[in-house]
Amino acid sequence: MQLNNNNHFDFVYYGHHSNPHINKIKLIFEELKSLGVTWDFREINTVKQENYSDEFIEQNPNKKIPALVDNTFEEPFFIFESGSVLIYLSQKYSKFLPDFRINSGVNTWTVYQVANLGSSLSRYTPSSNEFSQKQPQQLDSEVERVLKLLDERLAVNQYIGGKDYSIADIATAGWLLYLNHMPLFNCTRDSHKNIFKWLELINQRESVQKVSSQIKDSLISFNLIPTIRSL
Amino acid sequence: MQLNNNNHFDFVYYGHHSNPHINKIKLIFEELKSLGVTWDFREINTVKQENYSDEFIEQNPNKKIPALVDNTFEEPFFIFESGSVLIYLSQKYSKFLPDFRINSGVNTWTVYQVANLGSSLSRYTPSSNEFSQKQPQQLDSEVERVLKLLDERLAVNQYIGGKDYSIADIATAGWLLYLNHMPLFNCTRDSHKNIFKWLELINQRESVQKVSSQIKDSLISFNLIPTIRSL
Repeated sequence: MQLNNNNHFDFVYYGHHSNPHINKIKLIFEELKSLGVTWDFREINTVKQENYSDEFIEQNPNKKIPALVDNTFEEPFFIFESGSVLIYLSQKYSKFLPDFRINSGVNTWTVYQVANLGSSLSRYTPSSNEFSQKQPQQLDSEVERVLKLLDERLAVNQYIGGKDYSIADIATAGWLLYLNHMPLFNCTRDSHKNIFKWLELINQRESVQKVSSQIKDSLISFNLIPTIRSL
Repeated sequence: MQLNNNNHFDFVYYGHHSNPHINKIKLIFEELKSLGVTWDFREINTVKQENYSDEFIEQNPNKKIPALVDNTFEEPFFIFESGSVLIYLSQKYSKFLPDFRINSGVNTWTVYQVANLGSSLSRYTPSSNEFSQKQPQQLDSEVERVLKLLDERLAVNQYIGGKDYSIADIATAGWLLYLNHMPLFNCTRDSHKNIFKWLELINQRESVQKVSSQIKDSLISFNLIPTIRSL
């Protein structure tokens, strides 16, 4: 663990590759790169409980990852909750969060991911106790419900928040790009046609291709993919 | 169930008194009253599964309550997720959500409530299956963790988002004003001193007094409070 906040970078974010929340941060930074935004990553190994170290807690009392330091102000400050990081960066750079009157869907579906998709999918990640004991063999009914609703949303909207790519897509892609590499989700293509169509659409973005490839590498390094079907 | 959207009101919101999420909407509307904002409430009885009726689903595909219709535009539109409703109303009326550069704590702690506090406390509400079978007799370790962190936050900040009352307070108060009427939380005053100090502080607001009293009445009507200790 290296907590030393190197302020040569605009931002430093902390996390662990086994935790899909981190993918949201990766996705938005890849999009902001063209604006000249710079960032660095510091690994916090939750298995070694580095997130409970005094040094980390002092900066991030929630003890949770991912978390972000913004060095672009005189006084650097720490933000946690990946959903909040997305809202913060999108406001700061006026990207991916349209004016609330134009498209109220972006806020709603970003919160939907935070409140529903993240919590229902968390047991399918290598960072959960349940998963590390035994990989789940099927999706539970709450996950089915949450995905079904998302699939219905994408039947009538090209992107999750509406007609443009937004933080609602980024928040959701953080989880679904990950899940897409897992056979138990990937074999549900027929029942989630619109979700898989949307995955193909967003996969045209360079940022998505790059992060999806990183996710695949990290799953292979965790020895978690018996058979991978790529997009 | 009366779904007819009476557009004499600026807003119509749908929900059920057994579901604490609704308290967030009540709290923000009571604050917006002074701006001349008008609203009406429609009960959706989740026990009778009215949230699964075709009529309701057509407007709110998430099938969840609370949900809001904004009638102030030519084309009324529906918003769900109570956290999203708070962000939406605070942006629309420029209240309770300071500029992100002034106070990054508001977004973070609003998302913290949505992602942590709501999900960990949901089994303590009359609308959960678990609760209706048997009232929990003690707070579980995740709730303890989430409350401890909030208590630490309030040791160094007067309000949850920082120095002013914000949607981070409203989102959290929606749950804690409810929990405050339950003996199992109320008897933890000594271990959550800063939370109870904050509850006394926000209780100076007329909006909070009114909604807290409504919560008490609804808990009594559900016959859920053996002994009530008021603020």
